[in-house]
Amino acid sequence: MWNEEYDIVIIGSGFAGLAAALEACKTCSSVVVLDKMRTPGGNSAISGGLVAAAGSPLQEKEGIKDSPALMLEDMLRAGLDFNTPALAKIVAERSTETLLWTIEELGVEYKPNLNHLGGHSVPRTYNTTNTSGSGIIKPMLAKCRDKGIPIRLKMLLQRFIADEKGVIQGVEVRKGYLFPNEASGETWRIRARKAVIVATGGFSQDIKFRLTQNPILTQEIESTNQPGATAEGLVAALKAGATPTQLSLIQLGPWASRDEEGFGVGSMFSMLAGFPYGILIDLKTGRRFVNELSDRKLLVDAMLNTGRESLAIVDSVGVKYASTLNKCLKRGVVKQYEAIDELAHANRIPLAALLETIRTYNENVSKGVDEDFGKPIPDDLFPIENPPYYSIRLISKVHHCMGGIQINSRAQVLNIETHLPIRRFYAAGEITGGIHGASRLGSNAITDCLVFGRIAGRNAAKERTRT
Amino acid sequence: MWNEEYDIVIIGSGFAGLAAALEACKTCSSVVVLDKMRTPGGNSAISGGLVAAAGSPLQEKEGIKDSPALMLEDMLRAGLDFNTPALAKIVAERSTETLLWTIEELGVEYKPNLNHLGGHSVPRTYNTTNTSGSGIIKPMLAKCRDKGIPIRLKMLLQRFIADEKGVIQGVEVRKGYLFPNEASGETWRIRARKAVIVATGGFSQDIKFRLTQNPILTQEIESTNQPGATAEGLVAALKAGATPTQLSLIQLGPWASRDEEGFGVGSMFSMLAGFPYGILIDLKTGRRFVNELSDRKLLVDAMLNTGRESLAIVDSVGVKYASTLNKCLKRGVVKQYEAIDELAHANRIPLAALLETIRTYNENVSKGVDEDFGKPIPDDLFPIENPPYYSIRLISKVHHCMGGIQINSRAQVLNIETHLPIRRFYAAGEITGGIHGASRLGSNAITDCLVFGRIAGRNAAKERTRT
Repeated sequence: MWNEEYDIVIIGSGFAGLAAALEACKTCSSVVVLDKMRTPGGNSAISGGLVAAAGSPLQEKEGIKDSPALMLEDMLRAGLDFNTPALAKIVAERSTETLLWTIEELGVEYKPNLNHLGGHSVPRTYNTTNTSGSGIIKPMLAKCRDKGIPIRLKMLLQRFIADEKGVIQGVEVRKGYLFPNEASGETWRIRARKAVIVATGGFSQDIKFRLTQNPILTQEIESTNQPGATAEGLVAALKAGATPTQLSLIQLGPWASRDEEGFGVGSMFSMLAGFPYGILIDLKTGRRFVNELSDRKLLVDAMLNTGRESLAIVDSVGVKYASTLNKCLKRGVVKQYEAIDELAHANRIPLAALLETIRTYNENVSKGVDEDFGKPIPDDLFPIENPPYYSIRLISKVHHCMGGIQINSRAQVLNIETHLPIRRFYAAGEITGGIHGASRLGSNAITDCLVFGRIAGRNAAKERTRT
Repeated sequence: MWNEEYDIVIIGSGFAGLAAALEACKTCSSVVVLDKMRTPGGNSAISGGLVAAAGSPLQEKEGIKDSPALMLEDMLRAGLDFNTPALAKIVAERSTETLLWTIEELGVEYKPNLNHLGGHSVPRTYNTTNTSGSGIIKPMLAKCRDKGIPIRLKMLLQRFIADEKGVIQGVEVRKGYLFPNEASGETWRIRARKAVIVATGGFSQDIKFRLTQNPILTQEIESTNQPGATAEGLVAALKAGATPTQLSLIQLGPWASRDEEGFGVGSMFSMLAGFPYGILIDLKTGRRFVNELSDRKLLVDAMLNTGRESLAIVDSVGVKYASTLNKCLKRGVVKQYEAIDELAHANRIPLAALLETIRTYNENVSKGVDEDFGKPIPDDLFPIENPPYYSIRLISKVHHCMGGIQINSRAQVLNIETHLPIRRFYAAGEITGGIHGASRLGSNAITDCLVFGRIAGRNAAKERTRT
């Protein structure tokens, strides 16, 4: 019946899967990570490398008062109370210890400044020096190599194999699978003597599946995700008795560029500079229409309702935080202008209105209070008045699945009938649901994946070994 | 293997199940309806008996311009575009023919006036003369008796039985089940030579299940539904491969009374008189805070955000539409006052603010435009000035599950992996999802259940009979 066996079988080699592997291997010598793609790291490797942590060393250094309680509050407010508070709380409480783990145990390098992302009450976001999740994934992969954890690629999950009592015994995969050719590879069964951990991520690229949850997310709406972000892991888990939760809560990212595909380099430009240090305007009117530091759902809703053709503008002072600027300029995603009238003309924005918008905004900044939209005005935010000016044309793209399968605080997958854990079955990362509610805050995904990946790995390793 | 067989096996004896049975029996002589409860009719029998229809005879008589296109527009607006437009369109397009079917084929009796329910652009709602869904369920049951369709009670669905290709063959039930004793009854298998139709309704009373979708819907939050509105039919369908859709979109009703359990008699008082002909105020401030004819989601959101302690007030002119008034007064759900100051005093409302609220509202009514909240002001809406005055204390209660299992326009259940129909498997009514999106409009449920129940019955009857 089985082709191979390990103590712990992990599906998915992104943040959650690798965190689970690294934690499990501390007490368990037989761990394997499977991934269907030809390269490891999944969506994590192409993310922006932003990590939220409440009460971090950089916050202390910058004198920013923060706490897990405040981070939780931010999560619940953005999540419109769809979050499971007990799970969200764990992410907030373990955020700093997890960040420190990436630094101390993995050697991840972060920039020396914090970022203030939308929906967070304070700046609490670290960013990898290379402005990419690969800055965390690569050290994780290196550590897995050190520890002798095999990362086996081209292994497509077909189904979870359970015994007659529903206890998970292992997985059936297609070995030698060549994405996206479904006929490729051969059937291969791997037994898990302790447990299986599913960490296959979200389904933002699975157009047929996401349409079952939200009919407006048609093919025409691009995704920031890698092409392998599809639903088969989720579906396999549901067929094994997992509870689907909040699958229809799918996040669009408000900061991606209209002028490149996917997440690209523009998304980080907007997140690091355009939104916190610039303004977001409606092309048609030249006016602001929202607090640029709102959470993603509020921003996307505002863009859909008002600023259908939106543009972020930042000047030469604010742009210094945009570490992807050169790549953006090279690819034509960000445009540079010597004067506002040039920017207005090139983008067909009513000039008088735009000048008035900037004048009012600058007054607000000088006063330290955004009287129009309530954007936080920190000390390092300055009026937009120093040429050259930079702009990015925005469009909403499918970015993150808040919903998924339900887990408990031990990362155990819960059965849809009994609401009890399915034995020897764990999950972590974007495949799980309920942590972020209706709107995941930027930079909370990596924290979530690492926190719950480690919890899943630790608890899986504690399972009694089947003989 | 099988204890019995029929051509068509229908689970659930509410609007959708009975409509399916009555339609199927036109061409198929072997139809059975199963229900787990001791009495038939499920939640439908205790509903308010409100039926939306676009382009109806009463609208023509009253000179109200309406169309299926306008009804669809209303559904999509309230649904925040979560609706599957093709399904919503079918409900709107067949609304009037379905209403006429209830009159002509079933002999249902409706009141002579239309109602204007929240979120509908125009008055388009019929109401049964007894202000209850039983006014439709009873004629449906009588018709089933006439046609020789057995309604078999105390039959609890355990699972759908499929062949090795996943084609639905029949059901396993517990016969002689005594709700809610799960150990009661004996295992009984009924084969379906043509098809199975699942019409088991929503899960508003299934606290454990609804918590998997929305963690704020705890035990403390009451439901308007009958106790049998639980999730086992939905879970069984998911285990048979159905696609869950939008399960986390669960509606709270804004019109139920704080002073009685469940849907009671107060809900219809609010819907028929309090909201359309009266005002909704915040007890604490004495002020209006929302258009009383908003859809349910907008009303509940406004009540949660602003009017936490809400009260609807109507005068002796508006109250004439409240056909449940006497029952409400008898039960103490609605209170009667000779003067506004008496009402304010009894409910601890700031009197000056309340008088000002009523004065402003009355001015708006006289002008024909609600300048404060945009409530529609039809010709039969008059200022609140004729004693006695009536008030009802409100609280939000779990009312309707917009989500459920995904169907296509033929009412076929769609497979979660292939997105193709599961063969010989149909669904209709509240167990299905995607028709109403984020907010079902009042009086659209009965229309939906009857329209898709009939579609399911008709298509099931066309299936080739297995031998």
